[in-house]
Amino acid sequence: MIENSYYTHEHHGEYELVSIGELQLEEGGVIPDCQLAVATFGELNAARDNAILVSTWYSGTHQIWRDAYIGPGHALDPSTYFIVVVDQIGNGLSTSPHNATGANAGIAMSGFPHVRIGDDVVAQERLLREHFGIETLQLVTGGSMGAQQTYEWAVRFPEKVERAAPIAGTAQNTPHDFLFTKALIDTITCDPGFAGGEYTSHEQVVDGLERHAGIWAVVGFSTEYFKTEAWRSLGFETVEQFMEQFLEPYFTAMDPNDLLTMAWKWQRGDVARHTGGDLAAALGRITAKTFVMPISEDMFFPVRDCAAEQALVPGSQLRVIDDVAGHLGLFGVSAGYMPQVDALLSELLATPA
Amino acid sequence: MIENSYYTHEHHGEYELVSIGELQLEEGGVIPDCQLAVATFGELNAARDNAILVSTWYSGTHQIWRDAYIGPGHALDPSTYFIVVVDQIGNGLSTSPHNATGANAGIAMSGFPHVRIGDDVVAQERLLREHFGIETLQLVTGGSMGAQQTYEWAVRFPEKVERAAPIAGTAQNTPHDFLFTKALIDTITCDPGFAGGEYTSHEQVVDGLERHAGIWAVVGFSTEYFKTEAWRSLGFETVEQFMEQFLEPYFTAMDPNDLLTMAWKWQRGDVARHTGGDLAAALGRITAKTFVMPISEDMFFPVRDCAAEQALVPGSQLRVIDDVAGHLGLFGVSAGYMPQVDALLSELLATPA
Repeated sequence: MIENSYYTHEHHGEYELVSIGELQLEEGGVIPDCQLAVATFGELNAARDNAILVSTWYSGTHQIWRDAYIGPGHALDPSTYFIVVVDQIGNGLSTSPHNATGANAGIAMSGFPHVRIGDDVVAQERLLREHFGIETLQLVTGGSMGAQQTYEWAVRFPEKVERAAPIAGTAQNTPHDFLFTKALIDTITCDPGFAGGEYTSHEQVVDGLERHAGIWAVVGFSTEYFKTEAWRSLGFETVEQFMEQFLEPYFTAMDPNDLLTMAWKWQRGDVARHTGGDLAAALGRITAKTFVMPISEDMFFPVRDCAAEQALVPGSQLRVIDDVAGHLGLFGVSAGYMPQVDALLSELLATPA
Repeated sequence: MIENSYYTHEHHGEYELVSIGELQLEEGGVIPDCQLAVATFGELNAARDNAILVSTWYSGTHQIWRDAYIGPGHALDPSTYFIVVVDQIGNGLSTSPHNATGANAGIAMSGFPHVRIGDDVVAQERLLREHFGIETLQLVTGGSMGAQQTYEWAVRFPEKVERAAPIAGTAQNTPHDFLFTKALIDTITCDPGFAGGEYTSHEQVVDGLERHAGIWAVVGFSTEYFKTEAWRSLGFETVEQFMEQFLEPYFTAMDPNDLLTMAWKWQRGDVARHTGGDLAAALGRITAKTFVMPISEDMFFPVRDCAAEQALVPGSQLRVIDDVAGHLGLFGVSAGYMPQVDALLSELLATPA
């Protein structure tokens, strides 16, 4: 375990750490004491049937959902729903390489086992059932890797998911995304300060993390985002400022091993693991009312790929979010993004299950 | 100067090295003895008015033009035209960091000066005039950085360019491309073997060059190229083979400083330097019959950006090349690519100047 002040209540506000006990992983490893960071909003009703589950994306935490997506006036309204945001394993708040200690000391840092999307979903289901007594979900949603988890939920536990809204992500990771993620991984592992994952401070890998941010800028936004200088809406006056004061600090605060754990998981997201590689059969299991919600300018989860999967989900609808920001529009950087998401999620939530 | 067997006649066939003497550079540096590698095809006619100029792209040489674009049955037919392919400064065949010797010894390796697109065009114009006696060109064409040079020719020497065909490139580099190129640069400069540009063999930078190839895979092709496994047409059975036997060897053979020289140049391509930053005014100077030819799936010179510039070129036409390979379709990896290029260039060449 190493210190990293980013992964604290000071930076992430209120959240609870809930142990779900030992978690056997699909790849054969074990997390002896799997702790999930959970932030909840609203109240669970007496029937325990007003819950919404949100999962997190690569590098993300519950924080962005709390700040941008959840609250009065949003579709995710705590006055109606009990909204549970579960930080994914390896994101630095839930059990992760950098914070493995106590019973998890044996899997710290470079010793952390491979975790799959399915492991997260199994852990989340156990958390909801054992800790909250929740057996059905009004909605499962998430962006990017959160979309991967959303699809995994809808395929693995179809009877528990009334509605699903995978945003800007796929059920089966694409070969292009595998290469993109590899390029992201390489920025970290090639840094001499990474030391095979046994650095003593994430600051020793700052160069790698800055390069990581650099690749995110190229593929995570869109050509048009930079062409139109849309970053000005965030208060920056030059693209250099945007990088040095926004995207680079975002990543250089993070733990390299944690990012790598998520990257490995992202690369291998695939619901067809349930059906011997048959994606149509896997997606055909979904009974949730589903809105597939890609972002128009997404360069690596393009609308085309999302639409191809949507066509395999029974009764689903393709609802494209128009945003020049591309994939990282997920952060709500464009003024037009959240109103579209809210309208779509509200419509979906109003659809009888 | 260091040895690199890639930049030899064994790998690049016939070409001539022509000295154009001292070249004063826009950024203030000097190449004491600027040598341009030149491959010609066909015969210059007595009127010296049947010449076509081709310039090269990032990492490219005359080789790909000879092998894929030029010959009987192609628009670039040596039985009709005298086709001059000039390797860009810094590409490893023309004067470049790794081969600077003799009079150029003072600018070898990390001491190489910054070169701009305009410097290449000035050098090429001098070469054509002084060495070949050519004053007008039936066509100037090139892909990517070759498109940058094509636009520069058409703006700088409008009276000399009868027709122009910028393929998959822009007249003014975009901010997104600047970031993309920065990510490419970073893969090399962060390699400890790079040693500030003073390595003694490019093989010391092989890790960086492999990462370089990795980013090219992500942005240089298209999501759909990998989704459809279009690389199978090149004879590979897995995407790993495609990387390890095609894209990685392509770049690991090259000289890091040479690539950096081209990358710096690419980042700053901008015809509006002639008009105080007014792109419309610069492109308005063009009198050549111009086909602007983006590639449909290009992720970093998207059709949209090319179309915006085309709209500023008097009398020009936008002619999109349909290719799932994206930008690196330039290599002719898709069966449908060259027939489209040949048809477009033939039509352009048949258009009265």
